[in-house]
Amino acid sequence: MKICVLPGDGIGPEIMAEAVRVLNALGLGFEMEEALLGGCAVDATGTPYPEATQKLAQAADAVLLGAVGGPQWDALPREQRPERGLLGIRKQLGLFANLRPAILYPELANASTLKPEVVAGLDILIVRELTGDIYFGQPRGIEVRDVDGKSQRFGFNTMHYTESEVRRIGRVAFEAARKRNRKVCSVDKMNVLETTQLWRDVMNELAPEYPDVELTHMLVDNAAMQLVKAPKQFDVMVTGNMFGDILSDEASMLTGSIGMLPSASLDANNKGLYEPSHGSAPDIAGKGVANPLATILSAAMMLRYTFNLEEAAQRVEGAVKKVLAQGFRTGDIYEPGTKKVGTKEMGDAVLAAL
Amino acid sequence: MKICVLPGDGIGPEIMAEAVRVLNALGLGFEMEEALLGGCAVDATGTPYPEATQKLAQAADAVLLGAVGGPQWDALPREQRPERGLLGIRKQLGLFANLRPAILYPELANASTLKPEVVAGLDILIVRELTGDIYFGQPRGIEVRDVDGKSQRFGFNTMHYTESEVRRIGRVAFEAARKRNRKVCSVDKMNVLETTQLWRDVMNELAPEYPDVELTHMLVDNAAMQLVKAPKQFDVMVTGNMFGDILSDEASMLTGSIGMLPSASLDANNKGLYEPSHGSAPDIAGKGVANPLATILSAAMMLRYTFNLEEAAQRVEGAVKKVLAQGFRTGDIYEPGTKKVGTKEMGDAVLAAL
Ligand SMILES: CC(C)[C@H](C(=O)O)[C@@H](O)C(=O)O
Ligand SMILES: CC(C)[C@H](C(=O)O)[C@@H](O)C(=O)O
Repeated sequence: MKICVLPGDGIGPEIMAEAVRVLNALGLGFEMEEALLGGCAVDATGTPYPEATQKLAQAADAVLLGAVGGPQWDALPREQRPERGLLGIRKQLGLFANLRPAILYPELANASTLKPEVVAGLDILIVRELTGDIYFGQPRGIEVRDVDGKSQRFGFNTMHYTESEVRRIGRVAFEAARKRNRKVCSVDKMNVLETTQLWRDVMNELAPEYPDVELTHMLVDNAAMQLVKAPKQFDVMVTGNMFGDILSDEASMLTGSIGMLPSASLDANNKGLYEPSHGSAPDIAGKGVANPLATILSAAMMLRYTFNLEEAAQRVEGAVKKVLAQGFRTGDIYEPGTKKVGTKEMGDAVLAAL
Repeated sequence: MKICVLPGDGIGPEIMAEAVRVLNALGLGFEMEEALLGGCAVDATGTPYPEATQKLAQAADAVLLGAVGGPQWDALPREQRPERGLLGIRKQLGLFANLRPAILYPELANASTLKPEVVAGLDILIVRELTGDIYFGQPRGIEVRDVDGKSQRFGFNTMHYTESEVRRIGRVAFEAARKRNRKVCSVDKMNVLETTQLWRDVMNELAPEYPDVELTHMLVDNAAMQLVKAPKQFDVMVTGNMFGDILSDEASMLTGSIGMLPSASLDANNKGLYEPSHGSAPDIAGKGVANPLATILSAAMMLRYTFNLEEAAQRVEGAVKKVLAQGFRTGDIYEPGTKKVGTKEMGDAVLAAL
């Protein structure tokens, strides 16, 4: 059971330290090795996803990632930006299935900007395709071309999906729905984009194989509205890489506590990369105040999906629920009347609850 | 002052009737002529944007549209679907600048699913590019291809922008901000899409021409989050056609009263198409209960932008505010303690308030 640990940038190292402590405390004998990804890798090696990291990530059963990015790397050429590392590892490892739960913890209901009755009990799973779409499509670039009688810069990208790519992610969504409330809402823009017309067609073709799951379709603009209007109508939402990027962030913000939300990115054999849904928060990096719970919950997803250790996963998730019930809060989820703690004390609390 | 009136489908004819009554009541001598667009045009002529409508729309100074679409036309081939008519008229008339205000009327604050303190006083203007991007990009389609060693369906679309397209819509956003709170937030996905890297570059190049306006940039996933987290941070948001479709719908739903929101789509000479932000609501069509206020407010935008009749525009907007203050509500915005009225009575109330 080999885990490649990538602390990354910003608050990454701090939150990762707590997740590693939790994994060790389980006493399951994981072999963990650290490597560089993102800005720290650029600084050390000139590239965001260095050879050494690639080797380790490919050899491991799972990858646990903190977060990447920060303003100091924004001005670098495209190929050296931290997020290239993230896109590179996703593509290289074939991590096509991104699972992003948006769950509202009852203790944190006040953190949401939405009215309590609209979000109480919210529990959505967004299944986002992660290795295709306009993210990776060729041709792409910026060129000087003659357009409209002028020589001028012209930027272009290509969106595409094959039917097997859609089928593959569709199956993940249907299977996930079977373990939940048996509803899949597939999101597309079929009234404008042929790529997503194919998406809808393939989803419809899959549906008869899952007669116990209800499939509905929604246009992406309407989905962005419905998430605000009545988010609890959704169980599993499945969509492409680009729309999934937007909708999963919107959905996670409905909870108001994105510092609590984990994510998993899986390949066809349940090898996975696990990371919190939040970013590297450079503004609070190094201060010991970041919320480690999303990373700890990402480790729990790893136990469940890659190592098939459901019981251990639930132990970790139970410990997180317990520390919330006990009133421990990092700054991002603090309210008067609760106990404000730093990153390490929050880790301590989870360890104690285990 | 020639207006091409396109009632369209669903509730379109009902809400349009009230907007036409309001325009006539102003006594400004508009010449109005009706034509078919959308599903009704398909039924009558086999095509959603018939020749006769094209002629009328091209000859008119402005187009006032109700809404298009409905389930009875969903199974038609792509080229005959009602929304093709909408895309066709936008492109043919060169209506590249879509202005979509998201305004929360104080009387309707309860309609929002967000907490009052988060949305009270909300007033965002979304400026969406409307004739470029992946909406119109070639090549596009669904083909059978050999991919990954399999002969299979392959769907593809092309996103692109030229620098002059970006500059043109950027100017609209900066100019609009000058009449408001002098802040423009440009939304892109520059960390992944070259097209939107060019978008950001061009926005930055424009900024020095508007030293009195503050320009910021935001990634589209973050923008989708920030609209939920703290929508009042925005003044003018400018973005491409695809992201604008998603974000403008999300933003309008923050108000909870999309039945109140108008929109304008302008060409380079302020010829425009004006339509409510909501859809054709087939479920309540023909019942006389639809909210005509978004269409009436769209007519007010027409007075302002195409005909430069600022005073008349304000008269109409003032009348709408007055009927809200008087407690008149259609079903979509009704709350106990207010007066529930139908489409025609709401029109009557606006006429009386004029
Ligand atoms: C950093 C960026 C490339 C990435 C994405 O767009 O996929 C991020 O937003 C995410 O959602 O993981
Ligand atoms: C009907 C559809 C083609 C259209 C669009 O996507 O532009 C609509 O959603 C809109 O926003 O006006």
